[in-house]
Amino acid sequence: MIGWAVLNPPTLEAILRLISYLQDGEPALAAALDEGVLPLQGICPAADLMDLLQRGDAAMEHLKHALSTTTTTALLGYDDVVFSPLLPRPGKIICLGLNYADHAAEGGHARPSYPSFFMRSATSLVAHGMPMIRPQCSTHLDYEAELAVIIGKRCRHVDEDNAYSVVAGYSCFNDGSIRDYQKRTPQWTIGKNFDSTGAFGPTFVTPDELPEGARQLRIQTRLNGTVMQDANTSDMLFPVAEAISLISGCMTLEPGDVIVMGTPSGVGAARSPQVWMKEGDIVEVEIEGIGVLRNPIRDEAPRL
Amino acid sequence: MIGWAVLNPPTLEAILRLISYLQDGEPALAAALDEGVLPLQGICPAADLMDLLQRGDAAMEHLKHALSTTTTTALLGYDDVVFSPLLPRPGKIICLGLNYADHAAEGGHARPSYPSFFMRSATSLVAHGMPMIRPQCSTHLDYEAELAVIIGKRCRHVDEDNAYSVVAGYSCFNDGSIRDYQKRTPQWTIGKNFDSTGAFGPTFVTPDELPEGARQLRIQTRLNGTVMQDANTSDMLFPVAEAISLISGCMTLEPGDVIVMGTPSGVGAARSPQVWMKEGDIVEVEIEGIGVLRNPIRDEAPRL
Repeated sequence: MIGWAVLNPPTLEAILRLISYLQDGEPALAAALDEGVLPLQGICPAADLMDLLQRGDAAMEHLKHALSTTTTTALLGYDDVVFSPLLPRPGKIICLGLNYADHAAEGGHARPSYPSFFMRSATSLVAHGMPMIRPQCSTHLDYEAELAVIIGKRCRHVDEDNAYSVVAGYSCFNDGSIRDYQKRTPQWTIGKNFDSTGAFGPTFVTPDELPEGARQLRIQTRLNGTVMQDANTSDMLFPVAEAISLISGCMTLEPGDVIVMGTPSGVGAARSPQVWMKEGDIVEVEIEGIGVLRNPIRDEAPRL
Repeated sequence: MIGWAVLNPPTLEAILRLISYLQDGEPALAAALDEGVLPLQGICPAADLMDLLQRGDAAMEHLKHALSTTTTTALLGYDDVVFSPLLPRPGKIICLGLNYADHAAEGGHARPSYPSFFMRSATSLVAHGMPMIRPQCSTHLDYEAELAVIIGKRCRHVDEDNAYSVVAGYSCFNDGSIRDYQKRTPQWTIGKNFDSTGAFGPTFVTPDELPEGARQLRIQTRLNGTVMQDANTSDMLFPVAEAISLISGCMTLEPGDVIVMGTPSGVGAARSPQVWMKEGDIVEVEIEGIGVLRNPIRDEAPRL
């Protein structure tokens, strides 16, 4: 289930691995243990991950401590859990385009001197395990493996030196793109906001045992088991600290905001012949030490 | 206060004019009457405009009826009210660029065959009467008068013929732009998301007594009393119904989502010499029959 992640099994005292899942239709919080999923009702007062983030560092430390003293009897199996997007309603989702030199080059773009920022909306999100949807209006559904940074502190004008202090954790993101809509005008936004195209999760990992800034982590996309993207987060042109500094120079970041850090080369649109995801495919985004985000592809139901 | 709007005084039985204001620091709902502001606690069960929209058509009709039978004794003066952005936390704000042919032309753009969509975030919003902020990092703060469409129904794949059924109301928007950041890359998003640059309000007007689709309404920007933009909503290349149809063809719209319909010619960036808003300026966006959105300009406080 966790892939490379199990190479570094979590030490509960030091790091948190959390998931968001649906309990009676509402997102709830659980700890992701090697042995299974531990629901956190009764252990943590936060109703969900957004609530936990808004409660701040003390709540996070309290949860770490509570987990280290919990006897884990009532675990759920990973296959028995219906996941939610890690944060179903982030205040904002800010994405960086062209943040790996090789991906910029494969799309015919010059090496940028400033990131190409765009935004996704909550209605575009889809949970781990749930289908990413290819709409009826296009066949050009593409994958993009990306590191997601989850903000933990309200902040503005954060220097690079202090940037990691506002990061609550990291996760995986598949920045699914409807390429023909993305390219209809110079603004990519519409092609990045189709329903159920932005897969987000499954695990929230606190920064403690990852390399600083989540650097030096292998990042992959696999489509039906074939490796399509294979790179390292150290190849990012604008690393996490610089991205936070640049964005917070313009706008306030809030707990639960998400920064999606861009994708390396190997996207389907840049291949010859081009590769588009289709009904029945299985796409996986894996980031070393963070987790595996797996989604089947489904066609949008025809309109009657 | 209301400008052209008083030419068509509201008939409470037929239309609603609402505002969002701060009561003990929280957004609350009030009716905007010619004589003053009527707080709706005790008259309407909704805590704020988002809550009202999420309660649906029946709640809106109930409020109209309740207002028509209310004796309005305890009015606040417009100058005594601290406004909130009309919706402080919309689920999403979708903006159309280049939606007036003359504005596309003044920026050197061809007449588009599809709208240039981008998104704003809630942290960029600012209320009527509150300062729009020129950041320390740029002097290129520009105005853009725009019609705001507020969605009232969760929907997807709405045909143009049914588009007005999902519109809850209209308001004014000043899509304040930091032009040098907007143009740093082909993605405009970052220049459209600086804190306190997106003025939104003050009045929410139900569609009943406006022309269908809010067409044929004069739209103006005045900067320190000088008319800078002066156009008509009928000049939009993609009118409200078409915008809703195109957007909902890609993503789900939800109650409280906002569509910002683009700006006509006359922006400061396209003038010779260019005009940038600065500390002490007063900018007004007025849309006939809807209201006047007025904001002073302030410089961001220097960082110490």
